[in-house]
Amino acid sequence: MKKIAIGIDIGGTNTVIGAVDQDGNVMVNRSMDTPKHDDFEKYINDLSGEVKELIKSVKLLNEDITILGIGVGAPNGNYYNGTIEYAPNLSFKGVVHVVDALKKNFPDSYAIALTNDANAAAIGEMVYGGAKGMKNFVMYTLGTGVGSGVVVNGDLVYGHDGFAGECGHTMLIPGGRLCGCGARGHLEAYCSAPGMKRTAFELLALYNAEDSLLANRSFNELTSKMIYEAAVKGDKIAIEVFEKTGEYLGQGLADTVHHLAPEAIFLFGGPTAAGDFIFKPAYESMNRHLLPIFKDKIKLLPSKLKLGDAAIVGASALVWKEIEK
Amino acid sequence: MKKIAIGIDIGGTNTVIGAVDQDGNVMVNRSMDTPKHDDFEKYINDLSGEVKELIKSVKLLNEDITILGIGVGAPNGNYYNGTIEYAPNLSFKGVVHVVDALKKNFPDSYAIALTNDANAAAIGEMVYGGAKGMKNFVMYTLGTGVGSGVVVNGDLVYGHDGFAGECGHTMLIPGGRLCGCGARGHLEAYCSAPGMKRTAFELLALYNAEDSLLANRSFNELTSKMIYEAAVKGDKIAIEVFEKTGEYLGQGLADTVHHLAPEAIFLFGGPTAAGDFIFKPAYESMNRHLLPIFKDKIKLLPSKLKLGDAAIVGASALVWKEIEK
Repeated sequence: MKKIAIGIDIGGTNTVIGAVDQDGNVMVNRSMDTPKHDDFEKYINDLSGEVKELIKSVKLLNEDITILGIGVGAPNGNYYNGTIEYAPNLSFKGVVHVVDALKKNFPDSYAIALTNDANAAAIGEMVYGGAKGMKNFVMYTLGTGVGSGVVVNGDLVYGHDGFAGECGHTMLIPGGRLCGCGARGHLEAYCSAPGMKRTAFELLALYNAEDSLLANRSFNELTSKMIYEAAVKGDKIAIEVFEKTGEYLGQGLADTVHHLAPEAIFLFGGPTAAGDFIFKPAYESMNRHLLPIFKDKIKLLPSKLKLGDAAIVGASALVWKEIEK
Repeated sequence: MKKIAIGIDIGGTNTVIGAVDQDGNVMVNRSMDTPKHDDFEKYINDLSGEVKELIKSVKLLNEDITILGIGVGAPNGNYYNGTIEYAPNLSFKGVVHVVDALKKNFPDSYAIALTNDANAAAIGEMVYGGAKGMKNFVMYTLGTGVGSGVVVNGDLVYGHDGFAGECGHTMLIPGGRLCGCGARGHLEAYCSAPGMKRTAFELLALYNAEDSLLANRSFNELTSKMIYEAAVKGDKIAIEVFEKTGEYLGQGLADTVHHLAPEAIFLFGGPTAAGDFIFKPAYESMNRHLLPIFKDKIKLLPSKLKLGDAAIVGASALVWKEIEK
């Protein structure tokens, strides 16, 4: 008998659903448009229909299958209440009770649970990825924003209200860059993909770098991928963008270590594809910012989750953790 | 039958020992000079002798008493190993195995455990103080340095290596004041008692404040208590010292909230005796630095442990937590 967990990733544009086995392989997946269902009741019913179709198609592959449950990753997802609360980029507003609604439609599931996307990635790393067997680690997800998930004594830290792990909004440079949340100087404004672009534009301005490969792109054109490609070609500005991003990130990671003394910090997301360009300066900076008792002891590791399906794989991992309890 | 836990606080100058009941009352205490015993073996034997004397005198008060165990608070105390590791201000150097040594001398104890002083204070708050019943909170201890203890899901967070909770060494102002640890800009350099004195001297210089009550004290004379007394008398510089210290502290506390989403943060130590002078600006600053999802939700509370005996009371609390396990 093969055991399967369903992972659902609710995003502003698409909702992606996958059937994931115990090794973290996505057996089948489906996708639906999120904003077309702005009535939450209709959204959940359509989503449940998609999940039922998914289960049908998995059972075509292998009849001897048990579906253990459903894990959901969503922005502003609250684990304790099973709710999404005031997510700025989703079409349904206010507080919506996702887990309760799914439980009505799937009364036979052993476990249905929800958390935010970065927490789901951390659980995914613990269940299927590089954090297997680790009891204390932290996951940083670098993308449009910077998310994080904190694991202590083998359990994800949700905090008092379910919203722990917002390390992207810790203070990096008081009075510094405007952050998407409206405050200034947060880590996210420096270490996200758009943060890297902002660093590139600062450096172009600083050095008047007309000969940089990045000098012919508008602010709205430039991506972190282009910065990586330029760095590979030896572009000095691009290389310095990574060095500065690593320096910024390492300062923030050291603060996380000083709170939690984890065994390792994992980095996930587009900018981490640059490998040593980002990992080397980030590790060097983290280590330099640490108290002597922590120096050379904390690992900085790339996530082992595949970028493409990490969101549903992470969400599905919630199910295995729930069943463990 | 009355149950008693022994608390030992190992400090650079004195080692204090107390017998503490389940309500956190110190029934008897004793003290010995720490550096007079620089051979660790001699120190532990003398300390064990003191503990035995203490137990005798408790039993004189009440024959029907059970001694449950011994909890130790010490700088650089490592819970996992029961060791003190490279404590800069203690006379015994390197790594010393305190718990192992005490177990030899007290083989009948149910529990013997050790942690650092700030962690002990956090456990004390949870067992006897204002954090009773709280599952997620953080303790900041403001004194010569700034320590912290983190509680998640009802357990103290020790991290991978036993050294979690060094929030005093998170970055507050990159490139800022020199910290005792040798780095620059750490919270401890701004929010400890000496940090307040440094702020006072900056403000005296900034305003050329010859008429301030603080203007006739040398750098080595001025204490945080004097600043408090001047603030009570309406001294503008002293009041601004508290405002700035609260502003600094609130920024750091917000970073802690963004990591851990605690129900409350407790403040302990000399500078907190100033009450609203410090709590009001610290709360206002913390709240202003928080993401909207956390605003107005996190309590900032004074520790309920008595300043004088908090160290032994906190250390003794370790025993009740161990027995709970």
